[in-house]
Amino acid sequence: MREKVVVGIDIGGTKTLIGIVDHTGKIISKHQFPTDDTLDPVTHFKKCITVVNMCLEETGIDEDSLGGIGVNVPGLANSEKGILLHAPYLGWRNVNVRDILSEQWPTLPIKVANDVNACALGELVFGAGTQLNHFLWVTISTGIGGGVIVDRQIYQGEAGISGEIGHTIVEWADGNRCGCGNRGCLEAHASGTAIAAMAEKRMQTKADVQLLEYFRENNLDVSAKNVAAAAYAGVNAAKDIYRTAGMFIGRALSYSVNILNPGAIFVGGGVSLSFELMETSIRKVFQAAVIDEKNKQLPILKTALGYEAGLIGAASLIYSCEKVG
Amino acid sequence: MREKVVVGIDIGGTKTLIGIVDHTGKIISKHQFPTDDTLDPVTHFKKCITVVNMCLEETGIDEDSLGGIGVNVPGLANSEKGILLHAPYLGWRNVNVRDILSEQWPTLPIKVANDVNACALGELVFGAGTQLNHFLWVTISTGIGGGVIVDRQIYQGEAGISGEIGHTIVEWADGNRCGCGNRGCLEAHASGTAIAAMAEKRMQTKADVQLLEYFRENNLDVSAKNVAAAAYAGVNAAKDIYRTAGMFIGRALSYSVNILNPGAIFVGGGVSLSFELMETSIRKVFQAAVIDEKNKQLPILKTALGYEAGLIGAASLIYSCEKVG
Repeated sequence: MREKVVVGIDIGGTKTLIGIVDHTGKIISKHQFPTDDTLDPVTHFKKCITVVNMCLEETGIDEDSLGGIGVNVPGLANSEKGILLHAPYLGWRNVNVRDILSEQWPTLPIKVANDVNACALGELVFGAGTQLNHFLWVTISTGIGGGVIVDRQIYQGEAGISGEIGHTIVEWADGNRCGCGNRGCLEAHASGTAIAAMAEKRMQTKADVQLLEYFRENNLDVSAKNVAAAAYAGVNAAKDIYRTAGMFIGRALSYSVNILNPGAIFVGGGVSLSFELMETSIRKVFQAAVIDEKNKQLPILKTALGYEAGLIGAASLIYSCEKVG
Repeated sequence: MREKVVVGIDIGGTKTLIGIVDHTGKIISKHQFPTDDTLDPVTHFKKCITVVNMCLEETGIDEDSLGGIGVNVPGLANSEKGILLHAPYLGWRNVNVRDILSEQWPTLPIKVANDVNACALGELVFGAGTQLNHFLWVTISTGIGGGVIVDRQIYQGEAGISGEIGHTIVEWADGNRCGCGNRGCLEAHASGTAIAAMAEKRMQTKADVQLLEYFRENNLDVSAKNVAAAAYAGVNAAKDIYRTAGMFIGRALSYSVNILNPGAIFVGGGVSLSFELMETSIRKVFQAAVIDEKNKQLPILKTALGYEAGLIGAASLIYSCEKVG
């Protein structure tokens, strides 16, 4: 399959990214469009077929050169059967993705996986995890999720719900309420949503005049991205918010590392673009909370896959069958 | 190997238990003697050879009926090479156990593993884990350790230091100092040592007259076992101490379960004999700290291997090669 290419379909909560990825992990062609949760999922996947054909036409790649199609979904998947089991944010349940795509491409391998698991696999096949046996991949975005690689394969757990690092408790005393219903989850303290909420709260109490002025003067909405911009512009309260988020991330990473003793941790997702703002506080808390010098020195790195980790991850679902032993 | 039997050698921090275990996990013969850390380890393992021969003589089992020798060590082991790497409590390092035992039994398979990992394997082969793919085995004793089973095998991690649930932090604000140097580790809040320390502290401050009187009247030393006896005798402070330990155990188990999504958790070790005193508080905290209904209902059970889990675990190192696919 060396000369063949692979189609990646990365279904996100708000956008779908489709592209053609070559055997080195390079994206040859890509298109993005909204994930419309008012549509039924079958209609959405039929639109995906149209966009894939568009990519093929643009690049002049014929179907004989396709090695397969990898599909990421934002939720639970049965990889073996090619079924999206449940995507809570979209409200989709039990969508047989393989069946829908097979109508167009009856002979192609089609794989479906949870998006974070696919990103972890992408890191293994094309990123900074090619030499590791076991690692953890964490996405910090609107929410926080994790993918676990064990023995160079995605580890799914007994019911397919492994890697839920976003819902490990990092604040036992009076923690923030999480969307899952529990209190003190990492996601409720360090996700993009939580970072924005911290900024909102500080501005409401007017404890931080500098932060308030930064947002007013620049006429910005309060998002994790803009809080990072404020931090880079020298606003102390914004720096402090990222340090606080980093402290909570360090706590959660320590739990996983004491249990799993992975070879590395990779961080992706939108908030990871501001990793530098959190790195020192992550590592400080982490080192004081893991056992053994090897764990204390564990590499905690930004993903090598960049912003399109999801798309490369989707493609790696096909390539991993070839490359990963 | 159906008619053959296996020798188990369970080296503990204070005692060594040696026995012959049949293919159903039944102990046919056993002997116990102190683990003398003032001796060099080679001398100790030579004594083990003598005791194994004693067991064989007693039972009339000849060497041809032996399927192999499994050895548990209280520390880090290289299972493939049969080497004890480091047993901190005993101060032993780099002991080639296989070489020492091979002088006596040159043709027998000899396996060496960390004791908690071996217990987990014992649960898989002979205990309540025979139908599970993934689970966690936790020993609560003087210290607290964990063994992780993934895909029906011991999961060791990148450097052989996986399963360190005893050193996950359960108290971030002003946690107790742990022997590992960190603060707030589970081991510092819920081990046998920690349970005894809680009782000592309560008696010193004379906050609990009933507890103090119980120990004085019965002329008992303050151990986790005797605190349990006080609880069973109706002393409220003792019950409360076990509930507190259970609360911390519930916290630590929730971390592991969110990450690993195991099929069950098994609890062994001396303190697990008082599991009933902790079960309600473990489960209450645990359920409020894991995501997904399947995890909330996860079985958390006392080991089915009983008090001799270590010896059966040692034997399972040999039997697992035969029985576990």
